[in-house]
Amino acid sequence: MPQPETSLMNRLVSLCKRRGFVYPASEIYGGLNGFWDFGPLGTQLKNNIRDAWWRDMVDCPPIGPDGQPVSIVGIDTSIIQHPKTWEASGHLSGFADLMVDCKESKKRYRADHINVFEVTMRDEDKEEKARLFFSYVEPEQLNEIVAGLIKRTKKDSQYYLSFERHPRNDSEKYCREEGLANNFLSKIQSDFILIERPFTALNAEEQAKVIGPDAKNAGTLTEPRSFNLMFNSYVGVFQNEESKVYLRPETAQGIFLQYKNVLDTSRVKPPFGIAQVGKSFRNEVTPRNFIFRTREFEQMEMEFFVPPEDGMKWYEFWVAERLRWWGEMGLSKANIFRHEIGDGDRAFYSAATADIEYKYPFTDPNFGELEGVAYRTDYDLKQHQTFSKTNLEYIDQEAKTRYLPHVIEPAAGLTRGVLALLCEAYQYDESRASPEWLKLKPSLAPIKAGIFPLVNKDGMPEVAEKLFMDLRKTHTCQYDAKQSIGKRYARMDEAGTPFCITIDGDTLTSQNVTIRNRDTAQQEKVALDQVKSYLSTKLS
Amino acid sequence: MPQPETSLMNRLVSLCKRRGFVYPASEIYGGLNGFWDFGPLGTQLKNNIRDAWWRDMVDCPPIGPDGQPVSIVGIDTSIIQHPKTWEASGHLSGFADLMVDCKESKKRYRADHINVFEVTMRDEDKEEKARLFFSYVEPEQLNEIVAGLIKRTKKDSQYYLSFERHPRNDSEKYCREEGLANNFLSKIQSDFILIERPFTALNAEEQAKVIGPDAKNAGTLTEPRSFNLMFNSYVGVFQNEESKVYLRPETAQGIFLQYKNVLDTSRVKPPFGIAQVGKSFRNEVTPRNFIFRTREFEQMEMEFFVPPEDGMKWYEFWVAERLRWWGEMGLSKANIFRHEIGDGDRAFYSAATADIEYKYPFTDPNFGELEGVAYRTDYDLKQHQTFSKTNLEYIDQEAKTRYLPHVIEPAAGLTRGVLALLCEAYQYDESRASPEWLKLKPSLAPIKAGIFPLVNKDGMPEVAEKLFMDLRKTHTCQYDAKQSIGKRYARMDEAGTPFCITIDGDTLTSQNVTIRNRDTAQQEKVALDQVKSYLSTKLS
Repeated sequence: MPQPETSLMNRLVSLCKRRGFVYPASEIYGGLNGFWDFGPLGTQLKNNIRDAWWRDMVDCPPIGPDGQPVSIVGIDTSIIQHPKTWEASGHLSGFADLMVDCKESKKRYRADHINVFEVTMRDEDKEEKARLFFSYVEPEQLNEIVAGLIKRTKKDSQYYLSFERHPRNDSEKYCREEGLANNFLSKIQSDFILIERPFTALNAEEQAKVIGPDAKNAGTLTEPRSFNLMFNSYVGVFQNEESKVYLRPETAQGIFLQYKNVLDTSRVKPPFGIAQVGKSFRNEVTPRNFIFRTREFEQMEMEFFVPPEDGMKWYEFWVAERLRWWGEMGLSKANIFRHEIGDGDRAFYSAATADIEYKYPFTDPNFGELEGVAYRTDYDLKQHQTFSKTNLEYIDQEAKTRYLPHVIEPAAGLTRGVLALLCEAYQYDESRASPEWLKLKPSLAPIKAGIFPLVNKDGMPEVAEKLFMDLRKTHTCQYDAKQSIGKRYARMDEAGTPFCITIDGDTLTSQNVTIRNRDTAQQEKVALDQVKSYLSTKLS
Repeated sequence: MPQPETSLMNRLVSLCKRRGFVYPASEIYGGLNGFWDFGPLGTQLKNNIRDAWWRDMVDCPPIGPDGQPVSIVGIDTSIIQHPKTWEASGHLSGFADLMVDCKESKKRYRADHINVFEVTMRDEDKEEKARLFFSYVEPEQLNEIVAGLIKRTKKDSQYYLSFERHPRNDSEKYCREEGLANNFLSKIQSDFILIERPFTALNAEEQAKVIGPDAKNAGTLTEPRSFNLMFNSYVGVFQNEESKVYLRPETAQGIFLQYKNVLDTSRVKPPFGIAQVGKSFRNEVTPRNFIFRTREFEQMEMEFFVPPEDGMKWYEFWVAERLRWWGEMGLSKANIFRHEIGDGDRAFYSAATADIEYKYPFTDPNFGELEGVAYRTDYDLKQHQTFSKTNLEYIDQEAKTRYLPHVIEPAAGLTRGVLALLCEAYQYDESRASPEWLKLKPSLAPIKAGIFPLVNKDGMPEVAEKLFMDLRKTHTCQYDAKQSIGKRYARMDEAGTPFCITIDGDTLTSQNVTIRNRDTAQQEKVALDQVKSYLSTKLS
């Protein structure tokens, strides 16, 4: 199948804008980096994923490992909480990026966005090494960089050169994707031997010799300093340290703060869960990849409280369950990956963590995070117990014991879920009226059925409108009487609408409508009075 | 019917906490003034109202004045938008409270929270007036104030005394409610003639003579200065004027920013609407009345774009429609009031505005805002067109005209909706197992049915669990096998659950369950296999 030249992500972003799934936020003011708005179709899709998660977590949670239905309640906590919350959770001290300032250019860089290579000249004395510090830049700059490398290295083998990495992917893949790799790598490799090192792995002495990415002199960069990712604001009339508050970087902590209230006021006891859907904010230094890494985003998090000895059992249960769930939402097995985080890479308090990763077009052939399932032990409750001086133990009246429950946290990105499902659904087929179409799971599709009078006369609009008014009570439908039927099909394909129902001459004479299936593009005749049950069956 | 001594609001707040409707945010850290969290029941109730609004606005909007179904699409925009947004909307310059600082006490007061009375001594020379500036304080301070008034006025007739008003209600009502009015007023009236004036109505010379509420000397208060109600934050690594952003104080502006994108990418044309549900933030100086005036809250706003000549027609339509809708949600006619805002009191750009007000317990016998329906003309689009230099006109291809649509905005408070519906639903009846119970509209109730095995043995739990697992697929249900059946009814009454289904001996022998109706407390027998359709019928 021939594919268009533009990259898949570019086409998807374009489709999202053109059809009203996702728009850049504040676009008429030039946009705001890291913020996106959901248009009519995107909002419906996002709401459908949210509702499916809520149904499968809160209303109809799965059967647990003990054969009993799991018990989960939902809550909705404030984005702004008491600042002590983030002291206790560790976000105030630990939720930070290392930043480097340049005294010459007055610019600031994320330290981990500077990749460093040890570069050895091939055609010079092998003993004479020139350490060059650079990272990846826009394709059009590659030739210039290569030329600069050769020139500088030949002139002076003891200077340190740095470049800000293009904040997208690892460089090799990026170059390969853009078809520039061979050109770039062959030039580099003819002159240098490259050994990759992270900038943050340099010692202070080496760092002090680096020429800043936008500077001309060496030694202009400061040592890396911590920059907190939480947005801050001020409550009340004065703006000072005492009135400083933070926009939550995750919904989870709101759950921990109310765990005791829920325990005291709902009829729950461990094992039980508290679920929440809501917005979170992270002041990312380099937001990127469309709605993958944004500064404002939505999460679907659930904290599951269990007796300490049952932790690993429930951890395994929830990892498997969440993998199953994303599969049920339509992600194919080949594109989902369970990434078990190794002992050295987990948060110190976590006894086990698995990322559920998706093969996004911009990570392909690798995977990127979609959901994290973490066995957080009793870390959070213990921290809040200490900082709030409130006893958060669960008292088991029957067993006459008391303990701080352990917590398993399946934390999914709702915004990322929209992205993964759009990536998965995106189809390209030049033989169709609309080469681009979305193969969304029917129950998640923003519009369930398009309802068309074949022509806008002869009594067809009246029948179609009546059907629309009836169907819309149970399914999100769209009425469309404009343009040719082929164009209307094409519009619905782009929106991912699974069914198109056409009222035609046959409807007027024999009360049959034509229903066209998005995936097969096949049409079938269905009796007008059977359309509702037809849809209900197909969408259940 | 005997009523308890505690005020209705106190009882409601207590019930909300006890049953998990609403908790103070960050309660284990002492709370955060103006922030509340929704517990399991409150979240379900809020979601149900949100979904009902979305259904009646986006999925199944009403029939318009022209007999055609209204066309509305939903969107979901970012809380943080480009700061130019708030310049254009007028929020940066106009969305402010007047504040007064006290140089002596270092405290800050809202200027409009200081009520001023001109006080004339009765028993002294009628010509000699003492102007006393005070407002209302806690009941236990009333006697002290009266004593102070008498003493100071007798000693010196030319000083100015101020008190910070208790930010609850108007004083007379407050006193009456607390049963202290007669005591207070009789003392005052025996010595003084009171004439009320707002503090902000004093001229600068008078203001300069005032003794601050927490000060001992006169002339310590500054003149009123503007304080913006928008929370601010900073995007990116530097915190300066250029990186300053705001948390939206209303969801509406996000709609105006994307109006053009929606017009270009959806099949809509005026008259059409764009709807949004989401959080907004206002740094209220004095949050009050439970979840009525909070700093973080949720709105359900819809902007309806119409040809300019049809503005008043649609304004009338939406005011009537929104009144009808709140009635359908369960608010009684006697408790809703259409408050038409007079010419002098509207925003300068508004051609007409009506507040839909509810008689909250703390405003009774008066009303407080629940929703505002404003005919905003083309003010917002015109402002954004000017500030963004983007043409926002609608081009009517058929009529060969172009114009900026006029906008009708029904802007409802979702958080306030929860409060109004809880106030309306609250019942007190000492003859019931739970004297306090919630008469919520069944379809909005957090739990639709409680499912109880009469005793936790004899095979009843198995039948009840099976029924629960079946019913929960279509209705939010709760299974409860603990305590006496009376206590379980009582718990469900407090939660507003319309139906309780008991599996008893009769179920085992003749396959009948007992369904108890919340409102009538009557029970009826229903066949086990008819329960699902029974619920569906009663809840539709």
